[in-house]
Amino acid sequence: MHQRKKVAIIVAGGSGLRMGNATPKQFLDLQGKPVLHHSIAAFAEAYADMEIVLVLPEAHFSYAEMILQAFDTLHKITLVTGGETRFHSVKNGLQAVSGDAVVFVHDGVRPLVSPALIHRCYEAALVHGSAIPVIDMKDSIREVSATSNTAVNREHFKIIQTPQTFLSELILPAFDLPHDPLFTDEATVVERLGHQIHLVPGDEANIKITKPLDLVIAGALLSC
Amino acid sequence: MHQRKKVAIIVAGGSGLRMGNATPKQFLDLQGKPVLHHSIAAFAEAYADMEIVLVLPEAHFSYAEMILQAFDTLHKITLVTGGETRFHSVKNGLQAVSGDAVVFVHDGVRPLVSPALIHRCYEAALVHGSAIPVIDMKDSIREVSATSNTAVNREHFKIIQTPQTFLSELILPAFDLPHDPLFTDEATVVERLGHQIHLVPGDEANIKITKPLDLVIAGALLSC
Repeated sequence: MHQRKKVAIIVAGGSGLRMGNATPKQFLDLQGKPVLHHSIAAFAEAYADMEIVLVLPEAHFSYAEMILQAFDTLHKITLVTGGETRFHSVKNGLQAVSGDAVVFVHDGVRPLVSPALIHRCYEAALVHGSAIPVIDMKDSIREVSATSNTAVNREHFKIIQTPQTFLSELILPAFDLPHDPLFTDEATVVERLGHQIHLVPGDEANIKITKPLDLVIAGALLSC
Repeated sequence: MHQRKKVAIIVAGGSGLRMGNATPKQFLDLQGKPVLHHSIAAFAEAYADMEIVLVLPEAHFSYAEMILQAFDTLHKITLVTGGETRFHSVKNGLQAVSGDAVVFVHDGVRPLVSPALIHRCYEAALVHGSAIPVIDMKDSIREVSATSNTAVNREHFKIIQTPQTFLSELILPAFDLPHDPLFTDEATVVERLGHQIHLVPGDEANIKITKPLDLVIAGALLSC
């Protein structure tokens, strides 16, 4: 298998501040390091030639630069300003991608992504064009509408994680499409151009930190 | 609002042993007490007149009796042998329900159920006949088939928890139905008789212990 350039676009917030009086989740402490540090470190560790593009509000650049001091100069790391939506943030990050690459788009608030999962996504994207990590749905679910709710078979559904991984020749033209509110993740953008998304096994531990409880869980997982 | 008798059917395994060389999850230690102890304690604490029906393999009766020594004699606690499937186990447990009652069916491996959630289910079941705790789906999902996978709107789905709670006059006749593999939980059985299931807000912390990782998470949640 030929090798390719690797670029990780780590999304850590849009153009809005939305800080209120609380520290954004990606900067909260997780076992002595900011959440975002763990996310970056996993990609840096996965491949020596990984380029990292960090997308975040300009107001957070100085704090991000502090985090980046912990990393050696082996990896090219670029800071890019986030956009109005996730779509626009990723689009901004993609400006930093040149040449044939495998592009990973990762939630900055998934600090427990493992190098093994990153390797799996890379290998599968080389073969299939895309690689979206998914895990089984372990809970029963019901479909709800304004007036009723019905049981559905959870085996027909998978839970999506990141890094959503694509060959650059698939993701770059897809993000030239006009923004559509139905673009809820990168896979929905790329499949709009007719590409059939390829799923790979994700990792139960690769959780998204969206509330204080998740940070406690992440801490417990790291201590395992 | 009139009061009703309350019966919690706590399901902790079927007729099979399925122990292998591992201790069943409901007997694993969670902060110094077996998982099942926490589940029972929540129901005992929720209402002084709660009756508890513990459904489990006969081979586990003696160990369960040891757990039950920790509880005072205030609550009537009955041990019932589990059946071949979840449906049959619950059906066996329902034999112990007499008179008008609110019946809670709870996974023994959900030790973090709170008395507050049990109260919420009770009150809603009195009004609506049923009360199924649900939480929002926080992850993106895709619908998968043998040949393809497509994005779906997660806002149209809810994650189901227990205790699934019903008036006895709804759940008792429903479990006289012949078993159907489509009966994946108690709600699917009761709705088969035409009852529209009522959903109530569940609790993010009310997780199901299905693998070692979940036990770590539960420990972290209990330490919060």
